[in-house]
Amino acid sequence: MIPRYSRQEMSSLWSDEARYSRWRDVELAALEGMVEAGLAPREALADCLARAGDFTPQDAAKIEEIERTTKHDVIAFLTFMEERVGPSARWLHLGMTSSDVLDTSLALTLRDALDLILKDVDRVMAAVEKRAFEHKHTLQMGRSHGIHAEPITFGHKLAIWYDELRRARVRLEHARDVIAVGKISGAVGTFAHLPPAVEEHVCRKLGLKPAPASSQVVQRDRHAEFFTALALLGSSIEKFAVEIRHLQRTEVREAEEPFTAGQKGSSAMPHKRNPILSENLTGLARLLRGYAVSAMEDVALWHERDISHSSVERVIGPDATILADFMLIRFARLMEDLRVYPEQMKKNLDLLGGVVNSQRLLLELARKGMDRQAAYVIVQRNAMKLYEEGLDFKQALLADEDLRKMMTPEEISDCFSPGYHTRHMDDVFQRVFGRSA
Amino acid sequence: MIPRYSRQEMSSLWSDEARYSRWRDVELAALEGMVEAGLAPREALADCLARAGDFTPQDAAKIEEIERTTKHDVIAFLTFMEERVGPSARWLHLGMTSSDVLDTSLALTLRDALDLILKDVDRVMAAVEKRAFEHKHTLQMGRSHGIHAEPITFGHKLAIWYDELRRARVRLEHARDVIAVGKISGAVGTFAHLPPAVEEHVCRKLGLKPAPASSQVVQRDRHAEFFTALALLGSSIEKFAVEIRHLQRTEVREAEEPFTAGQKGSSAMPHKRNPILSENLTGLARLLRGYAVSAMEDVALWHERDISHSSVERVIGPDATILADFMLIRFARLMEDLRVYPEQMKKNLDLLGGVVNSQRLLLELARKGMDRQAAYVIVQRNAMKLYEEGLDFKQALLADEDLRKMMTPEEISDCFSPGYHTRHMDDVFQRVFGRSA
Amino acid sequence: MIPRYSRQEMSSLWSDEARYSRWRDVELAALEGMVEAGLAPREALADCLARAGDFTPQDAAKIEEIERTTKHDVIAFLTFMEERVGPSARWLHLGMTSSDVLDTSLALTLRDALDLILKDVDRVMAAVEKRAFEHKHTLQMGRSHGIHAEPITFGHKLAIWYDELRRARVRLEHARDVIAVGKISGAVGTFAHLPPAVEEHVCRKLGLKPAPASSQVVQRDRHAEFFTALALLGSSIEKFAVEIRHLQRTEVREAEEPFTAGQKGSSAMPHKRNPILSENLTGLARLLRGYAVSAMEDVALWHERDISHSSVERVIGPDATILADFMLIRFARLMEDLRVYPEQMKKNLDLLGGVVNSQRLLLELARKGMDRQAAYVIVQRNAMKLYEEGLDFKQALLADEDLRKMMTPEEISDCFSPGYHTRHMDDVFQRVFGRSA
Amino acid sequence: MIPRYSRQEMSSLWSDEARYSRWRDVELAALEGMVEAGLAPREALADCLARAGDFTPQDAAKIEEIERTTKHDVIAFLTFMEERVGPSARWLHLGMTSSDVLDTSLALTLRDALDLILKDVDRVMAAVEKRAFEHKHTLQMGRSHGIHAEPITFGHKLAIWYDELRRARVRLEHARDVIAVGKISGAVGTFAHLPPAVEEHVCRKLGLKPAPASSQVVQRDRHAEFFTALALLGSSIEKFAVEIRHLQRTEVREAEEPFTAGQKGSSAMPHKRNPILSENLTGLARLLRGYAVSAMEDVALWHERDISHSSVERVIGPDATILADFMLIRFARLMEDLRVYPEQMKKNLDLLGGVVNSQRLLLELARKGMDRQAAYVIVQRNAMKLYEEGLDFKQALLADEDLRKMMTPEEISDCFSPGYHTRHMDDVFQRVFGRSA
Repeated sequence: MIPRYSRQEMSSLWSDEARYSRWRDVELAALEGMVEAGLAPREALADCLARAGDFTPQDAAKIEEIERTTKHDVIAFLTFMEERVGPSARWLHLGMTSSDVLDTSLALTLRDALDLILKDVDRVMAAVEKRAFEHKHTLQMGRSHGIHAEPITFGHKLAIWYDELRRARVRLEHARDVIAVGKISGAVGTFAHLPPAVEEHVCRKLGLKPAPASSQVVQRDRHAEFFTALALLGSSIEKFAVEIRHLQRTEVREAEEPFTAGQKGSSAMPHKRNPILSENLTGLARLLRGYAVSAMEDVALWHERDISHSSVERVIGPDATILADFMLIRFARLMEDLRVYPEQMKKNLDLLGGVVNSQRLLLELARKGMDRQAAYVIVQRNAMKLYEEGLDFKQALLADEDLRKMMTPEEISDCFSPGYHTRHMDDVFQRVFGRSA
Repeated sequence: MIPRYSRQEMSSLWSDEARYSRWRDVELAALEGMVEAGLAPREALADCLARAGDFTPQDAAKIEEIERTTKHDVIAFLTFMEERVGPSARWLHLGMTSSDVLDTSLALTLRDALDLILKDVDRVMAAVEKRAFEHKHTLQMGRSHGIHAEPITFGHKLAIWYDELRRARVRLEHARDVIAVGKISGAVGTFAHLPPAVEEHVCRKLGLKPAPASSQVVQRDRHAEFFTALALLGSSIEKFAVEIRHLQRTEVREAEEPFTAGQKGSSAMPHKRNPILSENLTGLARLLRGYAVSAMEDVALWHERDISHSSVERVIGPDATILADFMLIRFARLMEDLRVYPEQMKKNLDLLGGVVNSQRLLLELARKGMDRQAAYVIVQRNAMKLYEEGLDFKQALLADEDLRKMMTPEEISDCFSPGYHTRHMDDVFQRVFGRSA
Repeated sequence: MIPRYSRQEMSSLWSDEARYSRWRDVELAALEGMVEAGLAPREALADCLARAGDFTPQDAAKIEEIERTTKHDVIAFLTFMEERVGPSARWLHLGMTSSDVLDTSLALTLRDALDLILKDVDRVMAAVEKRAFEHKHTLQMGRSHGIHAEPITFGHKLAIWYDELRRARVRLEHARDVIAVGKISGAVGTFAHLPPAVEEHVCRKLGLKPAPASSQVVQRDRHAEFFTALALLGSSIEKFAVEIRHLQRTEVREAEEPFTAGQKGSSAMPHKRNPILSENLTGLARLLRGYAVSAMEDVALWHERDISHSSVERVIGPDATILADFMLIRFARLMEDLRVYPEQMKKNLDLLGGVVNSQRLLLELARKGMDRQAAYVIVQRNAMKLYEEGLDFKQALLADEDLRKMMTPEEISDCFSPGYHTRHMDDVFQRVFGRSA
Repeated sequence: MIPRYSRQEMSSLWSDEARYSRWRDVELAALEGMVEAGLAPREALADCLARAGDFTPQDAAKIEEIERTTKHDVIAFLTFMEERVGPSARWLHLGMTSSDVLDTSLALTLRDALDLILKDVDRVMAAVEKRAFEHKHTLQMGRSHGIHAEPITFGHKLAIWYDELRRARVRLEHARDVIAVGKISGAVGTFAHLPPAVEEHVCRKLGLKPAPASSQVVQRDRHAEFFTALALLGSSIEKFAVEIRHLQRTEVREAEEPFTAGQKGSSAMPHKRNPILSENLTGLARLLRGYAVSAMEDVALWHERDISHSSVERVIGPDATILADFMLIRFARLMEDLRVYPEQMKKNLDLLGGVVNSQRLLLELARKGMDRQAAYVIVQRNAMKLYEEGLDFKQALLADEDLRKMMTPEEISDCFSPGYHTRHMDDVFQRVFGRSA
């Protein structure tokens, strides 16, 4: 992933040094398992533990240099380790296949990536929750089809987001469980050269579960689930971002992305505060969806494995996790500092002069026994006056004689009380947050 | 979906009559909820319950005819109901919005579709389990990169499939939980005209959970998860299908799709038994992936909803569920009657004259303390004799003096014992099936 | 495809009867080719031509019934033809393989589907062209990031669409060329049993070109290009639809989808005219993209063919073409009758009191030699007055002493002349339409 | 893109230095256009030309540093240029918008990327052509459904590939035409501040065509076509790669990827030569398809542009072109040195003892007037003898009395002549390559 969209916290998980450290961890854990199973001498393990060491960028470069000869990454790594550790290193990897190392350490990386992403999601959720309560009663026009419908509160909108984020979180947690499996089952998964006990030891040591059954590799439906969970997360963030873009439109301007004091707009026009963060998030979500497509095609490997998935994962492994992390942090900051304009929300709410309350009148008339069609005629003819004569809807209604036969002025006025639309916010918040204040 | 790929069990869930029945169920449950909440007279409910009735194709046609005038499907339905039920029908839908009906009844359909799919998965899993135990010890060549690697058993391969199917099942179960939510929260989700109690009543009655928070609609990340779960299921079936296609190749022929006694091949050639079922499944999986792409783009609806998701769901709702059901049943039958040829498996296993055991020799030598490179030289020069002189690998090894210094003839012979590769099958089966016999 | 989105013109191309008619045409043309090549008796051809006949739904049902026994669609068809035509029918299909018939007739269907789609595109282009000229000088606010930028004309926007539609048309034409190929080259494409002359005869007769080289099938990159061309078309229509949705927003309301006199909104609110056609088009575009994903996966068939593409094409062949046709006609009607509100466009244009002209002032000052930073300061401080003091931008500028040192009041006023932004419309229209009036 | 899959020839097009050089070229060409149009002084141009200079990585770093303050890449670049060039730099960019520079220079990069890709395609086509002629008559079993069908030649298979590559090339050429357009039409495409003549000058100078009409940006259907053309190319390469993987299977082994003398397999087994290049290509094709999905979603930008496409293109611009280039070169080398085993092809051809010729017998009998069913019975019963009694098909036929009544032994033997299947290769090669030798 390009540096522009990479945070060090995540991209460092994918560095060469980090990769070789994982491989070392897996190899050492496996050797320990062999020792426990009586398959290797304890001294060899002690030796390896003492000398394995960490990996500098220079080490990584050296391993890569070896790979140019061996044309095999794991063999290059082992060759390097033999030089570093000495004779005891020949006990490393004994009876293992490359995929034992690669898949188990990929699981570690993806798990850690998910842990970071989950932390990011928590930050986003906290920000959304805070803003939701802040605006629990901030009235705003609800819109369907982009057209004014009935009032909501801005906090209600955010409560819906929070609820959606929780679902995203559950999916990610599930993907974490699914991906956090290791395998030390050998070339075709039969434990031909090392018993299951070694695999179990490695997994216990590294915080993974053993894949109940594996071929040469861990099955790729697990990884496909991982990448689709990220794509779904991205799609939800896109939804929020699209909403912010809508609210920041010049004609709507009910909210704006944060901008810093000295920040210069793209031109001399002071109104030109563009929702570029949200637009950026919208685009990045498209990338995550594309990666999910590639990942789903990886599932159908041939026989006990072919290596077609490898190139895909080398690319989308870092790309998808780095982007997801970047998106979440960008979105968290955006939400933490989102500028909300309740005044403008109120102004837009009144744009159609109370016509948005027409449904309430209809219902009131219906409950009083008026026929649906008759009620509709009364309400519509008064609503039309706004358009045709510029007449205020409420005033028009109060002057309508047919209506007055059914409703008192007080009852009519009641249909315009703003509290009506927000009186169940406590219920919604209770459901979503487990608390209403 | 075209009839060719539709099973009546699933496609009937998507018929017009079924849809209108769902709508009726939702409307009646909502009215009942209103009555409980004191918002509608009990007699109206009694009336509606008594007269709502079922829907024939003729009824469906009549509703559609009304829709051509109203250009609104739910209004057409209600108009029909008013004619059928009489005056009490005006209490139906009072305070509700179309999406209350549409989304709640879509949840019912998708839930029932998933229940059918879960039943199908169970049938597939039962078939795979049966064949796995049947072939727990049927030796077969394990292949990586399409190249012979080390022996597995056919049952081991199937155990891996079973494990993967269980993951698919868990995903589907989760998708079921996520999709089985209703909403009777009105035009913008605020319960403006009906209290949450009505929604809760409807959901309890219909076996759904209330969406904790909703806009005009239930949020579409739920549906996207549903369709990606199907796409992932399809990708796993594709994997199994691709494997069968490989095994049925003329040169491999270790398994064949079932064929009926009188079935004629596509030509005079009796060998021409084509894995057409598996090829078909491979193609259908591509469709499910495509549908998931569309579904993920549905998440980012505008504001409290736009209706762009509707056309997508009208198409992929039936298409994806009908295909998934069709694929599962087709695959279940295929597995139940799959022809397995252990003799041919054995023949292929011996194709390279035991060279596949070379790894065991290497390990044995390494454990005896021989240097990795030296061991490699010994093993490889004997393996090459197969290619260069047509010499049997084992005989060549027994005649190798350097080797004889390290290993007795018995030890060498032991490296060719077939039981070696299958001795951990009990462990694998225990892990996967919870039983080893 | 569901009836709701199917127009008879397109869906009839995909009926069973149409399919069997295509097969008949291919078989008869091939027999004619054989006769020309001296490989079959002329009387057999005469007989077949005389008796082949057309296909009723009953015939189609009968063929399907036969297929339930033969489990092979082409054999079922030939069996039916043998019954219908008599002994001469045995010369039909002699030396051919099923795919000769299937792929050649699929090419006919896809070609005809494209011809209909191209006709639809022409209708759309005509509508867009007409409206573009109608609104060539209708000023409208140009928006980037959803934020007011500088003025455009609505006709300019439409000219861009027209230009994009032409590119879509070129892609479709190219896809037509690529798809309109036949093959009568036998089981593996070697012309083993029938010489190339027969293929050439068939193609000439049916208006196709022979695939220069084929395996059992025509290569599927051709079909993938076909479906991606439709997906790209759909994405362009989506763009137009999204624009209309934006323009119809309550706060913007510069254009509205056509609605019929008696048409009832979804509620009592007269403002509630929802852009449902455009939202529908937005959703359908997602389906076309999903189909393209499936089609691209069809390319990599195994060896001389596997049949995995068949199920995909059976579904997306009709689905994608029927939807594309439906979308185009729906969009054509929408454009033909789109309601455009120039007054509202003008009102929105003035929303920010002329601040959108600030860039012109900056340029003017720069050309007069003022330093960029200095100019920016002058312009911005006056623009800010709108926000802070509610002062009109132009008045503020005229009162700015520093500015007055650089520009006369006339020069300042000139920067607010609306004609400035439209003075190159002739050039743009000339480029796009080849005429400026 | 990760270094592993990046060739310097392509990735250098995407370096920071290369990007800034493009921007410089566009800005200088625009200034030249302004001078020609009398909108800027000629000395400013001379100054800028003299001092603009090239860009080192240090320059790039410096520009990035500025961007951290301005948060706008083009402004950072211009600030840098002002420092470098001095006062004359203020004429640069005057009247332009950032997208004028960005989109025009992106067009240059994508065009150059395509030119490199087209060169790569030519190399691939040359390799495939050479091998096709080399193996024009190398008999090989043709396979449908993975099952033996009738003989082809390996050269025939390659001729089909060549023909497919040519289609890919045409699509890429078309994408090149479509993408190679510039725009200097200002903030909303109206040429408000610079006349079309400047745009035309820039495009002429840089080898582009002016976009006939543009908004703030060049429309993104162009880019979507670009990326789908790459995805289709990738899908074709995947097809070829899958074929090689099949042919290299242990049981088939008709061809093998090149391997170098000293190259070590992944284990001691000398047969273990894995088709890893082809598997790698298979995976990379999945990535290209995923990128196409993202690109298609970029088409529907809002109004005169939103910036959501930018993040997508920053990532897939380099990623897709670098991968396509890498794939082509990898595949070219693979084809140039592919090991082909005609002996093994022949061996596989005979695997079923001539039964693959049964279709010829059927046809011969049919042409002699025998009823299709009767002929089928004769041929099949003899073919079955191979399976049931191990009898050679040809010998069985010669001994069949019913058959002998219809055909002489010579006629029967003729049905086994290998030349039969290859006798039209000249026609196929003539069509595909324009020459048959």
